[in-house]
Amino acid sequence: MSNNFAIVNDTLMPEDKASLQVNDLVIQRGYGVFDFFRTINGKFIYLDEHLDRFFYSASKMRMDPGRSKEKVRELINELVSVNKFPDSAIRIMLTGGFADDGYTVTKPNLIITQRVFGMTTENDETGTTLASYEHQRQLPHIKTVDYIMMIWLRPFMNKKLVTDVLYHQDRIVTECPRSNIFIVTRDLRIVTPADNILKGITRKHVIDIAKKDFMVEEKNVTIEDVLYAKEAFITSTTRQIAPVLELDGTEIGNGILGDITRQLQNELIKSLLS
Amino acid sequence: MSNNFAIVNDTLMPEDKASLQVNDLVIQRGYGVFDFFRTINGKFIYLDEHLDRFFYSASKMRMDPGRSKEKVRELINELVSVNKFPDSAIRIMLTGGFADDGYTVTKPNLIITQRVFGMTTENDETGTTLASYEHQRQLPHIKTVDYIMMIWLRPFMNKKLVTDVLYHQDRIVTECPRSNIFIVTRDLRIVTPADNILKGITRKHVIDIAKKDFMVEEKNVTIEDVLYAKEAFITSTTRQIAPVLELDGTEIGNGILGDITRQLQNELIKSLLS
Repeated sequence: MSNNFAIVNDTLMPEDKASLQVNDLVIQRGYGVFDFFRTINGKFIYLDEHLDRFFYSASKMRMDPGRSKEKVRELINELVSVNKFPDSAIRIMLTGGFADDGYTVTKPNLIITQRVFGMTTENDETGTTLASYEHQRQLPHIKTVDYIMMIWLRPFMNKKLVTDVLYHQDRIVTECPRSNIFIVTRDLRIVTPADNILKGITRKHVIDIAKKDFMVEEKNVTIEDVLYAKEAFITSTTRQIAPVLELDGTEIGNGILGDITRQLQNELIKSLLS
Repeated sequence: MSNNFAIVNDTLMPEDKASLQVNDLVIQRGYGVFDFFRTINGKFIYLDEHLDRFFYSASKMRMDPGRSKEKVRELINELVSVNKFPDSAIRIMLTGGFADDGYTVTKPNLIITQRVFGMTTENDETGTTLASYEHQRQLPHIKTVDYIMMIWLRPFMNKKLVTDVLYHQDRIVTECPRSNIFIVTRDLRIVTPADNILKGITRKHVIDIAKKDFMVEEKNVTIEDVLYAKEAFITSTTRQIAPVLELDGTEIGNGILGDITRQLQNELIKSLLS
């Protein structure tokens, strides 16, 4: 157990005291939403957008956060001022609440936790290797706590000797369990799936950055498109931009960090540190 | 809050004190399994089979219950002897454990809760009305805590003026969120889906009962098969056998409890009380 502090509803407490009654719908039924963002040198990264998405997720799940965005922001600030982790990852979560009947959403519980999480300013060259897996996440546009498949698929990943999976349906790729995927086509367009995905906040910022120098398209991408791509990369809050070096045993590009991915990494890192 | 007792790991406590640390994977990632069974007049209903399925679910999710089935049975007996509810529903649950990294299954937590739940010995004539909904549950053969869709679909059910949904994929029906479906064909065969479902314990016993008098088939059933059926019914631990009176606005049979469903209800009730 760590010495971190956490917030449950409006109360600050040591994280190992932060608990939830077992009748909460998130425990009984997996019914909860969250969001996850970073601080770098004490600065919140894309906090407004994460708060907006958090409230959007709650609304889509018919959960009343019971507080304004401003109040949630105040609570986050309170936690940050106590934990004093300049480089960190913060998780805000809303649960379905205590439901005696096992299915009625009641008054949600708000949980805020924070972890030390360092920023790397170097280009991620290690990247990721992927195996495709046919699966469509349920309610993909809502950031629910449902990551069952991600954990369940670990033996599959180990067997395939990859670090992550790429979900697809009928060979149309959607996303990785915790990140979005982009390809750089041989004619230097940047393409990323548009449908049946969680629209990542980092994804959005990378699109904005890429648009300055490239044609960017949000549209269907097939497994074959990825295999044939000049480069491919994933984006996420934790990974920022990580090159995809391999899909289903086939090297993407030359199996190393590509020039365009490197360029986008540099610009993202610069913007995160600015 | 109720005055029920509950068990967390091996410790008996008032249910409102039964809680879980917020870093448990079931809270962070919806990663947990459970089972659910009844007592009638103090007698456990199908306890062996529920324990078997519980341990099967845990194994498929790579969770170590940390105790033998016999030990879990002892804990259940301990809880029952304190709560003293002759007619009840008991829920046994295993969570993914405290995971600092957010995805590694660690030492699971065992939670056992009990609710008063009365047995009705009368034929359920009210039954259920269904609307079809295209969805395939992930890991359908494992009893995970993932019931997000069931709760999320409530406004859809309200709009359709039905009491439950029937999942299907390309018009091949699978199951309802918390029950299995059967049809009685016009030539008096009893048919129930075999694939991509949770194989209910009540489903199995109803198949056994039905086999004495009918030809029973486990095979694909389409929405059209249900609409054209002589009778249809659902089975579950809580509902036992409930007639399906309507699907997508069309009456099944004559929209009332049918003779064969009634006969099976009678035999199931008799066996539960014996």
